[in-house]
Amino acid sequence: MNTREKLAALRVLMKKHGLTAYYIPSVDPHQSEYLPECWKRRAWLSGFTGSAGDLVVTLRKAGLWTDGRYYLQAEQELAGSGITLMKLGQPETPDLMDWVARQLKPGQAMGVDPQVLSVALAEACEQTLGAAGGKVRYLSRNLVDQLWTDQPEPSLAPIKLHSTRYAGEGVRSKLKRLRSAMKEQGAQAHVLSTLDTIAWLFNIRSADIMYTPVAIAYAVVTDRGATIFTDPRKVAKGTARALAKNAKFAPYTALPEALHKLGKTRKKVLIDPATTNRWVQGHLRGAEIVRGASPVVMFKAIKNETQIGGFRDAMVRDGVAMVKFLRWLQTAVPRGGVTEMSAAHKLDSLRAEDRLFFDCSFETISGYRGNGAIIHYAVSEESDVKLRPRGIYLIDSGGQYPDGTTDITRTVTLGKPTPREREMFTRVLKGTIQCTITPFPAGTTGQRHELFARQALWKAGANYMHGTGHGVGHFLGVHEGPCSLKDIPTVPLEPGMILSIEPGVYEAGKFGIRTENLALVVNDEKLSRNGQQWYRFDTLTLCPIDLRLIDRKLLTATERKWLNHYHQLVYRKLNRHLDTDHKNWLLRATRGI
Amino acid sequence: MNTREKLAALRVLMKKHGLTAYYIPSVDPHQSEYLPECWKRRAWLSGFTGSAGDLVVTLRKAGLWTDGRYYLQAEQELAGSGITLMKLGQPETPDLMDWVARQLKPGQAMGVDPQVLSVALAEACEQTLGAAGGKVRYLSRNLVDQLWTDQPEPSLAPIKLHSTRYAGEGVRSKLKRLRSAMKEQGAQAHVLSTLDTIAWLFNIRSADIMYTPVAIAYAVVTDRGATIFTDPRKVAKGTARALAKNAKFAPYTALPEALHKLGKTRKKVLIDPATTNRWVQGHLRGAEIVRGASPVVMFKAIKNETQIGGFRDAMVRDGVAMVKFLRWLQTAVPRGGVTEMSAAHKLDSLRAEDRLFFDCSFETISGYRGNGAIIHYAVSEESDVKLRPRGIYLIDSGGQYPDGTTDITRTVTLGKPTPREREMFTRVLKGTIQCTITPFPAGTTGQRHELFARQALWKAGANYMHGTGHGVGHFLGVHEGPCSLKDIPTVPLEPGMILSIEPGVYEAGKFGIRTENLALVVNDEKLSRNGQQWYRFDTLTLCPIDLRLIDRKLLTATERKWLNHYHQLVYRKLNRHLDTDHKNWLLRATRGI
Repeated sequence: MNTREKLAALRVLMKKHGLTAYYIPSVDPHQSEYLPECWKRRAWLSGFTGSAGDLVVTLRKAGLWTDGRYYLQAEQELAGSGITLMKLGQPETPDLMDWVARQLKPGQAMGVDPQVLSVALAEACEQTLGAAGGKVRYLSRNLVDQLWTDQPEPSLAPIKLHSTRYAGEGVRSKLKRLRSAMKEQGAQAHVLSTLDTIAWLFNIRSADIMYTPVAIAYAVVTDRGATIFTDPRKVAKGTARALAKNAKFAPYTALPEALHKLGKTRKKVLIDPATTNRWVQGHLRGAEIVRGASPVVMFKAIKNETQIGGFRDAMVRDGVAMVKFLRWLQTAVPRGGVTEMSAAHKLDSLRAEDRLFFDCSFETISGYRGNGAIIHYAVSEESDVKLRPRGIYLIDSGGQYPDGTTDITRTVTLGKPTPREREMFTRVLKGTIQCTITPFPAGTTGQRHELFARQALWKAGANYMHGTGHGVGHFLGVHEGPCSLKDIPTVPLEPGMILSIEPGVYEAGKFGIRTENLALVVNDEKLSRNGQQWYRFDTLTLCPIDLRLIDRKLLTATERKWLNHYHQLVYRKLNRHLDTDHKNWLLRATRGI
Repeated sequence: MNTREKLAALRVLMKKHGLTAYYIPSVDPHQSEYLPECWKRRAWLSGFTGSAGDLVVTLRKAGLWTDGRYYLQAEQELAGSGITLMKLGQPETPDLMDWVARQLKPGQAMGVDPQVLSVALAEACEQTLGAAGGKVRYLSRNLVDQLWTDQPEPSLAPIKLHSTRYAGEGVRSKLKRLRSAMKEQGAQAHVLSTLDTIAWLFNIRSADIMYTPVAIAYAVVTDRGATIFTDPRKVAKGTARALAKNAKFAPYTALPEALHKLGKTRKKVLIDPATTNRWVQGHLRGAEIVRGASPVVMFKAIKNETQIGGFRDAMVRDGVAMVKFLRWLQTAVPRGGVTEMSAAHKLDSLRAEDRLFFDCSFETISGYRGNGAIIHYAVSEESDVKLRPRGIYLIDSGGQYPDGTTDITRTVTLGKPTPREREMFTRVLKGTIQCTITPFPAGTTGQRHELFARQALWKAGANYMHGTGHGVGHFLGVHEGPCSLKDIPTVPLEPGMILSIEPGVYEAGKFGIRTENLALVVNDEKLSRNGQQWYRFDTLTLCPIDLRLIDRKLLTATERKWLNHYHQLVYRKLNRHLDTDHKNWLLRATRGI
């Protein structure tokens, strides 16, 4: 079937169910950042394969809402499909739900699978459509699944135990902390929906989702027990036995029954309306719902000493791969034959040489010159270009290791940089440094602190249209809440949080520059006194920053000192893992300026 | 009557009205920052005279909630009154309304004058008390007024026209803009309650409130007419005639009738729930309420070219007064006899020499050494100390002039500064400079930008527990919303807004340091391009910054350059208004470093 035929078939089903519209958000039941293949319904139905985009089909129309990263790709992939591209962020683009409301006559309904709609979003939909006289109807079976005859099966990757040697805290202790927090929030039970909270809580990992080593599962924790709902074929006997004292496994499909029980016994159940889907809430009928963020989200954000030590270890191995890559790049490009794609593969394979390497932590961004200015550039066969010994090259990549997750961006010059390139590179670096070295009092949010990364750019009338950084999981999602360095309201920064610091500058058609380190929030012992806590960042990432792109005059003495100290640290930590050639290369790459 | 007798009398009235509690917030019907004498009910009843403090009296108890500025004063003034001091900001202090809720048994009521409760606060009270089974009862007559036999009459200061020579825009044009904004918000009428919005809209001023040249009034603007409700004795015939084409006057007491009419004709009426009182809302029964900020608030925040020119003129005269004061201080202190209070009076009288001087814009803060560390220090006969030729002295003051409102803080050394004093003074100055010189893209809020004023202090583990700045009115409130440089969500900074930039550092018992300038947000023409707007601050205040307190080594070249340019400007603008002695003093005070 082509897209037109699929839409026609969907409309037949919609009519059968008395629906005027059907909503296919790009979301799975667990609000995962990366969707497993079996749940890429929007991509299958519409043909648009971008990572973000919500689809609505009415009996006569169809619209797909996506953001600026995907305008071009969506236009191409949607051509001839009968689906209208709705460009998010353009003033003339209607809000998706407002648009649906206008398509419905009073009494008409929009259908949706309640598993792919959070409680919060469901309420917003009900309100918007309700105000216009329409309504939302929740259908127990997803209409797309009924058409998708070759829909992939969910992954059956085995669930593995995540050793406390890496996790630093056992399941019993985690559950104890959770139950105490639940009690404080007045809850007797808690339903967990997001895969990383479940993986963290039970010290389990799997490979059901790209880039994120988690298992597709729900979990219910009560004051006495804990159950993980997942496909039993994923659970070896030994795994179940190892967890048995703290939690039991039940089939993924047995969740509704467990929820009904909580409802029937009128339990007070904690759910997070932003991440729990409407279907879970529906099965909890009778329970007293306590709304709030899962305590696990904050627990998980604060890394313990073992996890921090693991991050430091992983950074050494990740840094070695990066150094090998950067040296290779310097010699291979002039010889010819290197492309954006082959360079990305080279780096991925250097990372994979590490025996603990599990996966990339996201798709490597490998952008030469103008392609580097495309912030979420994913190189494809069509876009791939050859690297030549001139201009700027940006590579943003990371690895999943059991002891830590990495995310690093380096920008290097492949020839002789222009003054403009050096100025902008140096201003970005000043941002990375100032954001890193400026201590801050307890209570400071990333929304405010990230400004220090922008100041040197602002002074030149430059800026970047993305956040300065994101939280990072421990052998979990490379993008992890609740902390961030973005212009959104968020929790204060606290010791133990690990975030990326990644200012950048992008000149369309010319270059993209970004320097990204991961850094740990630590207590600033020199400044903390009289009960006033001061924090600062401690950089974890270990990889040289291209000195050829630095305009030394633009750095303050303090900034130069930081850079030289950092480079000394990089050399000290990495050199013993390198052969003489690489060691010499690194020595030069980390020389004092 | 003493406080105990007043409380007893109030409780008799409360019983008569069947009330278990009575709430006396420190607010007037117009949410004025400074209360007129006639509405200082809490001060009269409780004996506590601080500017902030809410009182609740129950049949058995009484509590007064005030913040850290007033703990000491409140303790002294409340001693023996039977009123418990509730220290806001202390973890053990209950929320006022939660406390009331606990005092009420189901069905019992808290009484309150609906004129001193905003719509938003009234709803919050109703919700909190309602959830606990209690209720709010609105009493048409204030119970305190019934006891306060010698309550002052409201001011009868005449209403004067504020010339468009200063205002830069006529009433007709302002009303046109307002009506167009009302239409956009779907409103046919708008009730204005805050005195500065009314003064701005109708280009009128008066002297009913300390420090703020406004008239006690309400106003109603409809799509066709506009009425100012105020005491007719304040309005000369000529004033009424001059406004007649655009607005008519009606008695203050005629407002309810006008509101009833809007209600009866089911008009769509715009009110701001944060500033409109519950009594006004009550009289609008039948009307369709449109909730939103008054468009006048944003209009008023953006100063026009005439107002900006006026600010610049006022700054010259204000700067001359400051220069005369600073020179006088330098010679008078060693001669002896100068105290905090006499110094404040000296400055006030130097300002008053200007023929356009109308009033101070707030009570002058004159703090020597440890007293300077008390952020809202108001010198009194008891606290007054003599200034000696050593240590640090801080003076924060401002004037109301028809062409502009000023607010300036200067900190000077009266002897030889210590290295610590010089370091902290210089870090504060770096904050003032960086906040001033860092340009920012359109859309940036003061909540973020103010961080630049803190960075140099944070690097030394120092901070200040107040905002970096506030909006400033034009011959109106010296503290004016909606913009600010504070850690609260707020509107983006826009060209035409005038704000204070006033970082500080306070060492208890030792010194307070603050450097405050007013600055105008302007378009940065050098940086703005390709549709991306960049803004920056242009400093308005003209007064030297004490060079003896600056540690030159701590300033960057750019910061030194800014300071030297600023001082050149100060000299250029002020010298022609000074005699030779002052000119020479200023020349030295503004020399390049």
